[in-house]
Amino acid sequence: MDVFEAMGTCRAMRHLTPDPVPEELIDRVMWAATRAPSPGNTQGWDFVVVTDQARRAAIGAAVREAMGDRVSRMTHHDRTSRLMLEGTQNLIDTLGAAPVIILVCGPVIYPYDAPREQFTWSALYPAAQNILLAARALGLGTVFTSLFRAAEPAIRAELGIPEEIRIAALIPMGWPAREFGPVNRQPVERFVHRDGWEGVKRHHGPPL
Amino acid sequence: MDVFEAMGTCRAMRHLTPDPVPEELIDRVMWAATRAPSPGNTQGWDFVVVTDQARRAAIGAAVREAMGDRVSRMTHHDRTSRLMLEGTQNLIDTLGAAPVIILVCGPVIYPYDAPREQFTWSALYPAAQNILLAARALGLGTVFTSLFRAAEPAIRAELGIPEEIRIAALIPMGWPAREFGPVNRQPVERFVHRDGWEGVKRHHGPPL
Repeated sequence: MDVFEAMGTCRAMRHLTPDPVPEELIDRVMWAATRAPSPGNTQGWDFVVVTDQARRAAIGAAVREAMGDRVSRMTHHDRTSRLMLEGTQNLIDTLGAAPVIILVCGPVIYPYDAPREQFTWSALYPAAQNILLAARALGLGTVFTSLFRAAEPAIRAELGIPEEIRIAALIPMGWPAREFGPVNRQPVERFVHRDGWEGVKRHHGPPL
Repeated sequence: MDVFEAMGTCRAMRHLTPDPVPEELIDRVMWAATRAPSPGNTQGWDFVVVTDQARRAAIGAAVREAMGDRVSRMTHHDRTSRLMLEGTQNLIDTLGAAPVIILVCGPVIYPYDAPREQFTWSALYPAAQNILLAARALGLGTVFTSLFRAAEPAIRAELGIPEEIRIAALIPMGWPAREFGPVNRQPVERFVHRDGWEGVKRHHGPPL
């Protein structure tokens, strides 16, 4: 799949079917993850890929217990927010049934004279983005979440993740139960400053 | 260009020609940047895109003054390290001549009960990764750097970037003066833990 098409239609997929994902596709996604850049090419990342049914159920139960109906009770200001919150609540309720759960994590590395944690994130989030795009290119749905926060001690214990390892994202992956389609974003020119912060916010052409 | 091909050949391009980049291509890259995910779709990012020659020269001079020959004097343990350090020194010496310099930055946002800074990075680094991949798909070279750190006050002053805005990356972009090709990475199975940290590190298939 074309790079721009994958980026433009990589909707957060909060509804997944429980159908299994072939190992070959998981391999391709993890290959993609490890093509990301990292400071000084240190490759300071680890991926815990969970397909074991009992372990997925345990992670799902821990998140569900910690989150409950919290999200469904949140305020929504418009239709888009309402759909996002409904989707997130669905994800919380069904997380354990997602056929693959990927935890993007890694050690705190310190290659140069810079903030340690930030260097870690600067390797892990690009790798996470590659996971999302590679999955999309294969027709697999994913959603970038921080749901691990709600139940981090329980998830660490279940998977044996060492204390010194940071977790950047929890990404459920599976076959989409909703349509892929254009992502919902504000106009590009709101974010593009030309030649300086107060410069004209320029964007010339149509998106594709 | 295919998603996997772009990821697999997205070498850090530390040698760029000074030839200008058409505005239409800059637009497509910035469109791609803003397709990235962000917490609660907050889109908490700003991109300062510098093509003005005087401003690029000022940024290049500030970095060059701060860094000098520091990188070329660093130890290299093997051929790969040596080439990377030589490339980085070249980049420092020629930064002002890169036709486009993109600063990926954004405000600290705080959508939920989580570490503020980390949420900021979790939006900015995926957007930065989209810039790299979109540029690669268009035949443009980029390199993810933190070179802004060396001269951050001078660069902020030159571009008028407000104090409360974080900078995540400085990305020079232009036509490559070296070949694209497979990125240099350790075997995937070193990073993939199956069903738990101590699980067998599995990776079945060939990369593509």
